[in-house]
Amino acid sequence: MKLTSHPRFVTLEGGEGAGKSTTLAALRDYLRARDQEVVTTREPGGTALAEQIRALLLDPHHEPPAPETELLLMFAARAQHVREVILPALERGAWVISDRFTDSSYAYQGGGRGLDAGFIEQLEQRVVGIQPALTLLLDIGVVHGRERARGRDLPPDRIERERDEFFERVRDAFLERAAQEPGRFRVIDATQSIATVATQAVACLAERVEG
Amino acid sequence: MKLTSHPRFVTLEGGEGAGKSTTLAALRDYLRARDQEVVTTREPGGTALAEQIRALLLDPHHEPPAPETELLLMFAARAQHVREVILPALERGAWVISDRFTDSSYAYQGGGRGLDAGFIEQLEQRVVGIQPALTLLLDIGVVHGRERARGRDLPPDRIERERDEFFERVRDAFLERAAQEPGRFRVIDATQSIATVATQAVACLAERVEG
Ligand SMILES: Nc1ncnc2c1ncn2[C@@H]1O[C@H](COP(=O)(O)OP(=O)(O)O)[C@@H](O)[C@H]1O
Ligand SMILES: Nc1ncnc2c1ncn2[C@@H]1O[C@H](COP(=O)(O)OP(=O)(O)O)[C@@H](O)[C@H]1O
Ligand SMILES: [Mg+2]
Ligand SMILES: [Mg+2]
Repeated sequence: MKLTSHPRFVTLEGGEGAGKSTTLAALRDYLRARDQEVVTTREPGGTALAEQIRALLLDPHHEPPAPETELLLMFAARAQHVREVILPALERGAWVISDRFTDSSYAYQGGGRGLDAGFIEQLEQRVVGIQPALTLLLDIGVVHGRERARGRDLPPDRIERERDEFFERVRDAFLERAAQEPGRFRVIDATQSIATVATQAVACLAERVEG
Repeated sequence: MKLTSHPRFVTLEGGEGAGKSTTLAALRDYLRARDQEVVTTREPGGTALAEQIRALLLDPHHEPPAPETELLLMFAARAQHVREVILPALERGAWVISDRFTDSSYAYQGGGRGLDAGFIEQLEQRVVGIQPALTLLLDIGVVHGRERARGRDLPPDRIERERDEFFERVRDAFLERAAQEPGRFRVIDATQSIATVATQAVACLAERVEG
């Protein structure tokens, strides 16, 4: 299975508190105002089974998964999400905007946990097979992002409890991927105001819609 | 990660109702009578988290996993099982007898679902890394085995609900693996009486213990 890039598939990536969920709403509203069908979704998750896998992954109470277990659970959820939600939507002509996708596995399980990127690539090719045409990387300093995320007032999940050094490696891995694939990635300075980030994100999308 | 064969790691394989769980008890009793520490375990499962993954895999009620999802969930559970249970036990000198292991993925997700054996091998090398020194394949006709399994009086799980053709492919894949690795596999005719199967299984193990 080779990777196929889908023109109406858009992903948001970045660390905790970067503003992915906030920005996703702006992209969705932009497309809906143009009478486009839009499916918004998130990872890990996006189907009933994938959300159950998410719960196993993020629950801070049970036995922690080994890094390899974490990686395979992420890709198990993604395999299901792609087949049940993303591909059917793209095939009927809808836009799909996902809050996280495969780049998060390269960043968290690769950069953060130190698993081999070559193995992650094999999983991507074998069980995912698709890539977004546009990935918006919302970049922000680790401490700043974590402060914002704490403002959400939910208890931190298992991965959110990692140390700053873990998230520094995640951030570096995201930036490295963006540098390697400049045609697909747009990096947005997520320390700007919500309105400015949204305007810049929508401008990146508008290029694809109208251009 | 290369595959390392562990002399005190033994697995039981075969279709539903072949007698794996029954025979496992005989092997355990044989070793315990010789004052060996024995850990008995099963797949999918063997740790709290892996048993939760098992529940997602086998529950007949929810959204069925895609074949790729099923494969990755199996290996996610196995990655955890190897690291949390099997390797620690082997490292302290215990015997480990597992009711199913990686061969079941080749048979069910490979033979049964038609997924590529080369990909399964990559997963085995990357996340499992170990092989049993002895695998007892309990071979029985599909219809005969299913009749026995029905005698257990539990409702069939999601995989047990597959059609006979599925289990014919599983059986063929098991026999093919046994033919390819004659040093590791012993095939036992599981249509024989419980006592005869147990005697033959124990004899295979005794060769390794005493020989
Ligand atoms: N550009 C921004 N400036 C200030 N606060 C922001 C900005 N973007 C998001 N936030 C706030 O930060 C918190 C985290 O944003 P969220 O969109 O949930 O981030 P993520 O989904 O990337 O973890 C929320 O409370 C949100 O309102
Ligand atoms: N050799 C045998 N002859 C007759 N019945 C058997 C034999 N081995 C097992 N059984 C019975 O068949 C059923 C399935 O056996 P079990 O060990 O649970 O199989 P498995 O674990 O391979 O699915 C049980 O009720 C068991 O008592
Ligand atoms: Mg979010
Ligand atoms: Mg059994």
